Amino acid sequence: MTNISDRMSGLKPSAIREMLKVTADPSIISFAAGNPSSEAFPHEELGEVIAGIFSADPSGALQYSITEGFAPLRKLTADRLKNKYGIGTEDDDLIITSGGQQGIDLMVKCLVNEGDCVICENPSFIGALNSFRSYGANIIGIPMDNDGMDIDALERALKSNSRVKLIYTIPTFQNPTGITMSEEKRMKLLELAVRYDVMVLEDSPYFELAYDGKIETPIKTADTTGHVMYVGSYSKVIAPGIRIGFACGPKWLISTMTVAKQVSDVHTNGVFMTAVAKYLEKYDLDAHIERCRSLYIRKRDLMLRKIDECIDPQVRFTRPGGGLFIWGELPDGFASAPLCETLKSYKVAIVPGPTFDTREDIASRGFRLNFSVPSEEQIIRGIELLGSGIRNYLSGR
Amino acid sequence: MTNISDRMSGLKPSAIREMLKVTADPSIISFAAGNPSSEAFPHEELGEVIAGIFSADPSGALQYSITEGFAPLRKLTADRLKNKYGIGTEDDDLIITSGGQQGIDLMVKCLVNEGDCVICENPSFIGALNSFRSYGANIIGIPMDNDGMDIDALERALKSNSRVKLIYTIPTFQNPTGITMSEEKRMKLLELAVRYDVMVLEDSPYFELAYDGKIETPIKTADTTGHVMYVGSYSKVIAPGIRIGFACGPKWLISTMTVAKQVSDVHTNGVFMTAVAKYLEKYDLDAHIERCRSLYIRKRDLMLRKIDECIDPQVRFTRPGGGLFIWGELPDGFASAPLCETLKSYKVAIVPGPTFDTREDIASRGFRLNFSVPSEEQIIRGIELLGSGIRNYLSGR
Repeated sequence: MTNISDRMSGLKPSAIREMLKVTADPSIISFAAGNPSSEAFPHEELGEVIAGIFSADPSGALQYSITEGFAPLRKLTADRLKNKYGIGTEDDDLIITSGGQQGIDLMVKCLVNEGDCVICENPSFIGALNSFRSYGANIIGIPMDNDGMDIDALERALKSNSRVKLIYTIPTFQNPTGITMSEEKRMKLLELAVRYDVMVLEDSPYFELAYDGKIETPIKTADTTGHVMYVGSYSKVIAPGIRIGFACGPKWLISTMTVAKQVSDVHTNGVFMTAVAKYLEKYDLDAHIERCRSLYIRKRDLMLRKIDECIDPQVRFTRPGGGLFIWGELPDGFASAPLCETLKSYKVAIVPGPTFDTREDIASRGFRLNFSVPSEEQIIRGIELLGSGIRNYLSGR
Repeated sequence: MTNISDRMSGLKPSAIREMLKVTADPSIISFAAGNPSSEAFPHEELGEVIAGIFSADPSGALQYSITEGFAPLRKLTADRLKNKYGIGTEDDDLIITSGGQQGIDLMVKCLVNEGDCVICENPSFIGALNSFRSYGANIIGIPMDNDGMDIDALERALKSNSRVKLIYTIPTFQNPTGITMSEEKRMKLLELAVRYDVMVLEDSPYFELAYDGKIETPIKTADTTGHVMYVGSYSKVIAPGIRIGFACGPKWLISTMTVAKQVSDVHTNGVFMTAVAKYLEKYDLDAHIERCRSLYIRKRDLMLRKIDECIDPQVRFTRPGGGLFIWGELPDGFASAPLCETLKSYKVAIVPGPTFDTREDIASRGFRLNFSVPSEEQIIRGIELLGSGIRNYLSGR
């Protein structure tokens, strides 16, 4: 009886996190990361608020806390979502989670039975896909256009599957494609969710990292019937290592997710729940996000410029309006997994498409590039190397 | 389809954590807590190491980290377990978890299928019971003697149930009873686990809080066949709010738990993984634990003395050699849940037996008292009030 549970037996370690170990090699230029740039962390401000917590009485922050999260942080987060983005009704509640990942995992655990269907974009975020798999869900991947999920395909999937429990979407600067769903498609998706009475999990860790002016309106903002759970995070706008995220949605589901969180980790780190609350009170998060934008916009523009300059035009790339990722697609008949092998000798790392594919399809032609972590020098040199590696791979040499 | 998953639909919020909200009322003397005393936290030392992290370069601690946990903390923790307690073989590995609770939850998720059986002491820790329930396990409660689990009943349960996947035990200063399993029973339990090829989850958050000299040898120390997962925590010996625990066991299971953790919260708070590592390098944890002992031993002795003095001898109490809890049992025919109601007018709070009962049996006559949190004054006054309340309840007035 000492064997793995069925729900976990299909899972592999996240290729990305495994790759992080490989790309620890400093001689490799890595576009494989998924994290924000360390340059963008408010080091001093966080250090200062934490020093303040310890110089006052830290007992509260060091003691067990309630599972819903530190009350001032819940209120500051809920108020900001409401006032800035119109997110949250009196039928909604908000829970602090240990990163956005936990918000996804708790919702899936609380909603999805083994054998139920989860619909999502294909490709999609590996952390969410693995959460679905770990609860025995059947994943239905919906192809994407440049304006997001193919809504007709979504409707067909809803019509033809009686056990759909959840539609998972990253509508803005999607991971891995960088694609943003159009206003029209957002409204259509919500309308379908209501008509088929299926919950939506709106995963939105990047939407404030918008580089072309406009910040997209979340789907949750239009949710009047309690069909949308909004999952967000401070990871991309403050720092990921602190593991502070949040989920805002219908009270009946948040209260069950709270019970699931008691079982998962009791509550999120108390000192950092307090520290983020004090940071939000004392500093201007929006001004900080503006500084992150100006850092990332330079890197995105540089990477796109170098791509146009160095990479065979047969390879198509998205031109994301924000976020951390650009998605490339090789011509017909060329899979991206073998390309990654070729690239090892070019000392450049990317993430191959199968990692993000809902069926882990090894024939996937896509690959993900991250522009937030590498330096401008690494972007210039790395895209040149990528261009040579691709030329080599496509010429079959 | 917008309804709770089957696995979560049976769960109630932990009565204890709900009670914490009630006992926020300062006029109530609470013996209902489950946490260490804030007096026992190494405030200054933690503040100092964290200041050190931020005055150096905190980028690493603020960035995404690997799921297994901060390498120096893993090594320091594994070395301490090995050198002090003989825990861990070359076939074992160690993962840092977000508190001991996450170690339990990850193991259950990775091992137990819906419908499988988990055997544990009855009564047992509510956080573990709820984790078992949340994965659809059938819980088989084994009654306890003063020297731990009834081993004959354990063997009968193993014989008569083909789907037992896990034996869960808190062998030392058990929660909620304070009972410690004898050396002989530990060896018998391990022998049975090996014979029936069932994994053991040894949950040991309290064993170093030993007040009568002897520190018990963990079951894991005798595990040569890889049948024991040892779950520990820094919550009770440093502070619970930081949510740092660990699990040490067979590599095949730790590697799957690592995948499950990627899905749960990616990794534990990076700054505090670094801070605890620096604390262990710079300070003497054992000397700190000695200070905790001297604080708690006074409180335990005082509570036991007041119990003998103020409470009807028909009510039986355990006399724990350590930990945080004393367990009381009312005479035949008197359930503890109604007693808690009676006690509200006496302004004293305890946790009733059904909370810890594997079947949530409302007829449970037991109740849990915590002595680590209340002040000596509160213990004196609170036990007097408890004595009056019990007298009232037993006399049926």
